[in-house]
Order: sequence, then structure tokens, then C-alpha cells
Amino acid sequence: MANYSAPLKDMDFLLKHVADSRQFDQLAHFDDYDAPLLAAVLEEAAKFAGQVLSPLNQTGDIEGCHFNDGAVTTPAGWTDAYQQFCDNGWLGLALPEAYGGQSLPRFIAAAVHEMWLSSNLSFVMFQALTQGAAEILLAAKDDRLKQRYLEKLVTGEWATCMSLTEPGAGSDLGNTRTRAVRQEDGNYLIRGQKIYITYGEHDLTDNIVHLVLAKTPDSPAGAKGVSLFIVPKYKVDEAGQCGELNDVRCVSIEHKTGLHGSPTCSISYGDEGGAIGELVGEENRGLEYMFILMNEARLSTGQQGVAIGEMGYQRALEYSLERTQGRDALTGETNVQIARHPDVKRMLMGLRAQVTALRALSYQIASRLDLAEVDSQDRAAHLQFVALMTPIFKAFSTESGNQMAGTTIQIFGGMGFVEETGVAQLMRDIRVTTIYEGTTGIQANDLVFRKVLADQGAALTALVSEIETDFALYSALDCAGAETEMLTQMIRVVKDTADYILQQGKEGREALLCGAVNVLELLGIACCSWMMMRTAVAAEKQKLQSTDRDYLNNLIALSRFYFAHFTPKVLALHHTVISAGTGIQDYQIEE
Amino acid sequence: MANYSAPLKDMDFLLKHVADSRQFDQLAHFDDYDAPLLAAVLEEAAKFAGQVLSPLNQTGDIEGCHFNDGAVTTPAGWTDAYQQFCDNGWLGLALPEAYGGQSLPRFIAAAVHEMWLSSNLSFVMFQALTQGAAEILLAAKDDRLKQRYLEKLVTGEWATCMSLTEPGAGSDLGNTRTRAVRQEDGNYLIRGQKIYITYGEHDLTDNIVHLVLAKTPDSPAGAKGVSLFIVPKYKVDEAGQCGELNDVRCVSIEHKTGLHGSPTCSISYGDEGGAIGELVGEENRGLEYMFILMNEARLSTGQQGVAIGEMGYQRALEYSLERTQGRDALTGETNVQIARHPDVKRMLMGLRAQVTALRALSYQIASRLDLAEVDSQDRAAHLQFVALMTPIFKAFSTESGNQMAGTTIQIFGGMGFVEETGVAQLMRDIRVTTIYEGTTGIQANDLVFRKVLADQGAALTALVSEIETDFALYSALDCAGAETEMLTQMIRVVKDTADYILQQGKEGREALLCGAVNVLELLGIACCSWMMMRTAVAAEKQKLQSTDRDYLNNLIALSRFYFAHFTPKVLALHHTVISAGTGIQDYQIEE
Repeated sequence: MANYSAPLKDMDFLLKHVADSRQFDQLAHFDDYDAPLLAAVLEEAAKFAGQVLSPLNQTGDIEGCHFNDGAVTTPAGWTDAYQQFCDNGWLGLALPEAYGGQSLPRFIAAAVHEMWLSSNLSFVMFQALTQGAAEILLAAKDDRLKQRYLEKLVTGEWATCMSLTEPGAGSDLGNTRTRAVRQEDGNYLIRGQKIYITYGEHDLTDNIVHLVLAKTPDSPAGAKGVSLFIVPKYKVDEAGQCGELNDVRCVSIEHKTGLHGSPTCSISYGDEGGAIGELVGEENRGLEYMFILMNEARLSTGQQGVAIGEMGYQRALEYSLERTQGRDALTGETNVQIARHPDVKRMLMGLRAQVTALRALSYQIASRLDLAEVDSQDRAAHLQFVALMTPIFKAFSTESGNQMAGTTIQIFGGMGFVEETGVAQLMRDIRVTTIYEGTTGIQANDLVFRKVLADQGAALTALVSEIETDFALYSALDCAGAETEMLTQMIRVVKDTADYILQQGKEGREALLCGAVNVLELLGIACCSWMMMRTAVAAEKQKLQSTDRDYLNNLIALSRFYFAHFTPKVLALHHTVISAGTGIQDYQIEE
Repeated sequence: MANYSAPLKDMDFLLKHVADSRQFDQLAHFDDYDAPLLAAVLEEAAKFAGQVLSPLNQTGDIEGCHFNDGAVTTPAGWTDAYQQFCDNGWLGLALPEAYGGQSLPRFIAAAVHEMWLSSNLSFVMFQALTQGAAEILLAAKDDRLKQRYLEKLVTGEWATCMSLTEPGAGSDLGNTRTRAVRQEDGNYLIRGQKIYITYGEHDLTDNIVHLVLAKTPDSPAGAKGVSLFIVPKYKVDEAGQCGELNDVRCVSIEHKTGLHGSPTCSISYGDEGGAIGELVGEENRGLEYMFILMNEARLSTGQQGVAIGEMGYQRALEYSLERTQGRDALTGETNVQIARHPDVKRMLMGLRAQVTALRALSYQIASRLDLAEVDSQDRAAHLQFVALMTPIFKAFSTESGNQMAGTTIQIFGGMGFVEETGVAQLMRDIRVTTIYEGTTGIQANDLVFRKVLADQGAALTALVSEIETDFALYSALDCAGAETEMLTQMIRVVKDTADYILQQGKEGREALLCGAVNVLELLGIACCSWMMMRTAVAAEKQKLQSTDRDYLNNLIALSRFYFAHFTPKVLALHHTVISAGTGIQDYQIEE
């Protein structure tokens, strides 16, 4: 199986000309950042992804993780790769230099992170955890915790994990049953069971810093009574040195359909009396802190959809150029590359168009996070944009990723069903991404209720006007054809959907709940269409000064393809949104 | 994991009141057929599926098949189950009594076949092969072959397999390289390699009758020079007795992502000089014969989408009633069954609605095959309907099946990604169904070019008028609401699509080829909407004479749900069909 080859040209184009990172030349915030640095970082990352991580992807899938009496062994090659990953400074790329990171902008880190996810998703799942945990510690403003933990995490000397889910409660964190009792020394004794803990136990690091949600006695009921604790596998003294084993035990690892190289652990805290935990920030604010990490993880998960899509596209392109079969429908030539069959070309373009649009969106989100750092005047607007986009990107990109893995297998035909080719692994690996870090249904409710209704549609209205600005630029292009009519309809449909949500928010929630997933998909397609308009506009502009016209013309063709093959779905989705309750209220589940 | 429980009530309703089998009471062709017989057959089949086949489904997935020096061993329990299956007469249910079958109507056999596919898809894949092989032998009118092979096949004493695909040519059968040279005794010496042969070798029967496509010397190029041969694993003498081993060898079995219990074999014919083959029918008519079996296999494959959808629905319903979590969005009650969350209810209804519509369609197709047997006046029209529906049903049902397996996993959340629950197996098993027996792209081309353009839209026009008839009945119902407007649009869109195809057929094929898959999906949704109109009409009618009003009201709600959540997609698909070439012609695949 061919190794991953980072799509540097596409990444570079989207970073420089499509995402709002294009504003960075003017802002010049990141002192060290310039175009050569960007190119150097991406090229080095591309090498590491293609030469170190990618070759371990299929072997890791085949071997999987091993569990033996509480200890977890990762697949062959994992520990070496981890050491190199940390030594090269990849782990803390976007984390502060003061703690051993590289302080690079988020939008560069996003491109690099995508390479890790494409080349070996199972392996690199720890990175978003570290990024998020570090941000929690930075936000919690607890110098003692920071001094003892942050550098160890940022440099990768220690790993971290996110201990949320319990056997009885998956998505409902307010139901947390793990208990934390404050001791005289200020520490807490933690007792409880957690499941589905990614990298909860492994052999990559000397210590693992568990971030554990638990409830203190007499805490308020539900989500407002949950606190966050640091529970290290080995206790950490005042000097930040590892001491004796804490009362933390990995009970088992899951036998999953995909992500075999990533250990998914059941962890028991306090079987021998209680695990020692340290409170992060204040009591009862655990979910608030955890959501810092969770939002990080959601953006990373969204990138997993792009990353698997890209890997699938690379494999499918390669295969469809190698494999010859059948007759060219137009020329009659026989035994042609299957990429020449219009239906296969349609699938290949569908993959590349989706990847391009979603990738642009991920860079756009990252850029706005960067802009929020440097542009204090519009900080709130940037963060509002990111907050709106997080559920859309997380859910729509992972749903698309699942669909793209299916398309990849379809292009491979029978060879796709056979494990040796490695493309079935894409389907198996991506499957959980629409579930973990909040299911698609949960993202949809977050979107409709907390991101649209809660601000009376302000963020969505701002998004629509950004889309309209780019639509005006696109429709003025010479290349723009009949598809501008569809884009006009799309913008109208997005506005109608916004109006509908605001109106239903007053009149009745049930119909909104029935159609929330459809709202999310509709906005996902609208945002991708928006990015493809920007891509076409940028490509037309570049044609004036570039000799690479074939490449740029392809980007324009790809955009127009998106408007014909994906954008029209908003028409159907809008219809479903406004009639979503039909039949549901009348139907009785049969027990 | 709960075993499969056949949805007898739903099956009974659709068989009696929705599919055209309702005409059977009048026709009374099948002498032995009456309602009690139908009930008895379905109940016995339900027991066998639930008690014998279903318990072997997950164990077969885990164990898989074993290959050792040419011999294939099926998973534990397979040989016993096969013996019982044949002893009970299930194999030849719709095959002639004269050869050991039961001569039951196809529409009953379709319901029974669905049970096998739901309960253990890997196991029962041999059945459509036997059905198809028997029909080939019946059609070929060769008494010598019939006498020696038919009864053995129908009773299951011997199995059969379909040897089409070769290493260099998947879908392109005209490229067949296997050679057949006529000998003085009238037999042929066969030499060549075949791959992806389902049940090509196994331990279920004493002999395996391979149906092999091969080319004779000096045969015409391409598809018109392919002949069909019977190549038994053990040679068969004039009396129909097994003799010595033929020159047929299983070289390996595939390591697939799903269908682990079904051996997928690479077979080598003639390594030791040549396998003895007997010509079926006439030389160079091999594809014509094979398409008898292929059409059979396509209908069976379409049913696999329904069957996996049903199994997923059963599992998801059970899980979502057991699993409690979160707050009821309307009443505020906490820790409720997840089936009460509107988004989960939407997914459950989506599964049941799709299964209901596709199941009705499969019974409708089977009924029309039965009607073709008894109704000589309209025979051509019935067969024309079946020919049109075969690619639609095969591809749309399997694409839906893949999507439904995903929805099932989504309802299970994290538990769906863990293999123990068995729902990930649904995703893995179903994945190949959009590929084998002709990919979705191949079905789409068959539909647009051979089933619509070739008869100048006659079959499609006839279908539209059937849909219009049922729409008139539906829209006259009291329960019909605003969704009738959407159904009106749907019918218009189907007509516009038909017109577009006929017009493009003259003006240019490329745009048609780019949008053929979209045409197929559009017609798939239209046909399912049609079946749901019939379901609602039938349910309203039954309410006049039934006390089971809750059940019937649910069917009506389910139909209206389908019109709100699925039917609108035709709007988007139509737009894509008529603009399908946008961007594709301008885009250059980058090599």
C-alpha cells in the first residue's frame, strides 16, 4: 500500500489564498512567521507523516493493542514514533514556547495536524488531548499545576487522557457518578469507573495525566455539580517528579471495529481506597474547563473527516489510474484507466471537492482562532464565528468522512472489500468520529439551541453576510455559469432556515429537535459551498500571476462541480427542516 | 446479542395489502397457495432464521472460514445448519416440484429469503446462486444437463457457484481470458483463473457445480464470444454420479472486512492439463445465460439491503428502549429511554420507513414475476417492470442498506463501534453489496441506457402512471397533509428526468453518464415514496375492518415521515442530474 503523501500544494493554496490567514501578512503578529517558515514546517511534517507514521498505519491496524493485567502495549513501532514525534517538537506546535512548545499560529498547526490524522489516525489521537489539556491548565490560572504539569505535557514526556464517560452515562455528563472527596491536604480521593478512555493507558510515556470529571459530596445536581481533577497514574510531588503508583487501574481495552492502534480503556479509580486527585480551578466548574478541551477535540475530530477523505482520495486516484477496465464511453477505446469512466471521475472529483471545501473550512476556523488572539477589536466576532462553526464542522466533516470512505471503497470495487488494500480500514477507523466528542445529534442540538437561538441568530446572520460577500465576488467571475442561480437559492434557503429556527424557538421545540441534524447538514453544505466560491475566486485571481493555469483551472472546475453535485442538497434539506415533525409526533415507538 | 425476530406482521401486511400479490386471490394460479399456507411457511421460516441461523451469525463472523491446502472449512455450525436448511426444503422453495422444489410463488419466497439474509447473510449467500443456476438449466432446455444436475442442485445435495470475475477484469466480462477447448467427446477442456468466487469451495456439500464463463478458440471478440460451462468439482457421469476429482483447485480465500462466514475463493481451472467442462446451451451465448442468474443475484442482493436494514432496526430499537440517558426535551424528565429523544426517534423511524418501503418494493417485484407466469396477456408488461426495477432496487437498496447500517451504529453510540454488540458487523457485511453483482455505477448505466433509453422511456412512463394512480388514492385520504404538494413535485421531477434522459440520449451521452447514479437514486426514492403511498392507502382501508388501529396509524405516520424526510431529496437529485456535467468535462485528472 502506498504511503500518505501530504497534499502540500493544495494546503499551501488554501492557507495562503482562501482562509482568512491571508490577513496574516498584514497583521504580522507571530514574529517568527513568514512564508518560508510555513513551507519549511509543512515540508518537514510531510516527511514525518509519509515516512514514519504512514508505514505504521496498516501494521498498527493488524496488530492492534495488547492488554495484559492492567498494562497496555501499543503496536510495534508506536513507542519509537512517539519519541521522534515529541523530539521533533510536533506535539506542542501551537503551544507556548514558555512551556516547551513552538508558539506557531493555529492555522499552520491545523495543516500539520491534518497530516498526522491522514497518515495514522490511531497513533496521533493523543495530540488533541495534549493540546486541550494544556489549554485547560493555561486557562485555570493555577501556577502550582502549571509548573508541575504543563511542560511535561507540552514536550510529551507525559501523556494525558480525558476521563469523562461512565458505564451508565455516555453523553450525559451531568449524570457523573465518580466521587471526589476533599482531604485535609487539599487533595481529593477519587473513586469511580470510566469507559471509552482514549489512550487511558499505554506504554508511550512514563506517566499519564488523567483529567477526570467527578462530583464532590453535596455538589449541585446535574451538570453544574461536576468538577475536574487531575489524577496522575504516578503521583507527582511538589517538584514535579513522579512518585508511587496512584490508585488508577486499566481494567480492559475495547475490541473495536476500527482505530485498533489507539487503546480505548476502561479505567477504575480508587479500587484500593481512592486515587489521589488535584482539583483543577474551582469546584463545580469542571464542565466549563472540560469544554475547553472538548472544543479542541471537536475541531480535531472534524479534521479527521478531512484527513480520511484525503487519504481515501489519494488511494482511489492512484488505483483508478493503475487499474484498466472497460470501454471509454465516448471514444470507444477499450481497456482504459477506470479514472476515465465518467462515474469514476465523478466519484474522484466528489472526494477531492469535499476534501478541498472541508479543508478550507478547517483552516478558516483555525485562522479565526489566530485572529482572535491578535485582533482585540474583533475578538468577540472571531470567537463567535468559531463557536458557530465548531458543531457544524465537527459533525458535517465526520459525516462526510464516513461517506468518503465508502466512496473510496466503491472506486476500489471488490478490492476495497479485501483488507489487504487498506481502504476498508478507512471505513472502520472513521466510523466512530460521528460519535465521540459528541454525536452528530448532540452537535446539531448545540448548533440550533446554543449557537443560533441563544444569540437570536446573530452569529448565523454574520456568517450569511460573509457568504454573500464572497458570492458577489464569485458571481462576477467570467467562469461563473448557471450555478450562480443555485448559489442564490442556497443563500435564500440559509436565511429562511435561520428565520424558521428563530420562529420555532418561540413556538415549539419539538419540530426543531426533529430537524436539527438536517439544519446542521444544510449549513455544512452552505459553508463548504462558500469555501468553494472563495477557492474559485482565489484561483481566478492567481491565474493573473501564475503559470500554473492547469492547476488553477482544475480548482475552478472542482468548485463548479461542487455547486452542481453538493449544493443542491440544501433544497431538499430545507424542505425537511420545515416539515421535520411530520409523522414523528403521531408515531408511537412500539415497545 | 438478541437473535433475529422475523417481522411477520409487517411482512404479512405488505404481502397482502401493498404488493401486487394482492391480486393472487383472484388469480388462484398456485393451486396450493392460500392464506394459511402463507402464514405457516412464514412462521416456520421465522423459527429457522431466529433459532438456527441467527445464533451462528456473530460466531461465524468471529471465526471466519479456514483455508488449508485447497480445502475450505466453514465456521462451526455451518454444515449442520446447511443440512437442516436443505432437509426442510428451504433451498428450492420457489423451484419446480418436479426437481425437488416446492413450487411456491416468488413473492412468498422473497419474504422467506429476506429472513435468511437478515439472520445470517454470510451463510445463505449460496441460495440465490442455486436459484439462478437452476433457472439457467431450466432455460437452457438441455435434458441431459437437467437430468444429471437439477435435482441435486435444488435439493442442495450439491452446491453451485458463479465463476465470472478474473484477476484482470472485474466488471468487464467481455475480457474473459479463461479458455475452453472442445474435445472429441463433446466436453471442453477449461483453463484459467477466477477470483471473488462466493462459495467456490467449502465443506457443505459433496460436490460443487461451477458455472464458468470462458471463451472458445476463434470466438468473437468481447461479450459476444463468451460461453458458459458447467465445471463440477467432481466429474459427473451419465447416471449423475460423482466420479474423480476434476482439475479444479481453490488457491486461496480472501481476507475480507465483512462476510467472514462466506468463503470468497480464487479458483484455478486446469492447472494439471485442463478441467472437464460441459457447455451450457450454445456457444457464445454465455452472458445471456449468465444474466438469468445475474438478475436473480441482483434481486437477492437488493434484498440484502432491506435485510440488514431490518436487523439494524431491530437491534437499534431494542437498544434505544433499554438504554436510558439524558433529559426529555419536552417534559424535562431525566434519564429517559433514548428512543424518546426526537433525534433518536427520527433515526429509528428513518430505519423503519426505509425498510418498509424497500421491502414493499421487493415484494412488488417478486409479485410481478409471479404475475408474469400466470398472466400471459400482460406478461411483457410485468417483465418490463421487473427489468426496469432490477437495477434500481439492486443499487438503491444496497446503498440504503449501507446508510442504515451507519444509522444503526449511530444509535448505539460508542457501543456501536465495539465489536461485541454485533452492529459493526452489519456495516462490514453490507459494504460489498453495492459492489458485487454489478456496482452502483454499472446499475445506473444499465438503468439509463438499457432500461430507459433503449425502449424510449416506455417502461418508465408505465411506472409513472402506476405511481400517479396510487398518488390519486393517497391524496384523497383524510390523513394526507401538506406532503401531497411534495409528492406532486416528485412526480413532475420524475417526468422531467425521463424527458431529460430521452433528450440527452440524442444530444450527448457524457452528461448522462456523469449523472446516471443520481438518476438511479432519484427513481429509487420515487419508487419508495410510491410504496409508502400504497402503504398509507392500505392502512387507511384496513382501519375500516381492523381493531389494530395503533399499528395501522403508525404505518400512516411512517409514510408521511418518509415524504418529509426522504422524498424531498428528489429535488436536489433532479438539479444534479440536469447539471451533472458541470465541472467534470473541464477537469483534468492529475496523474
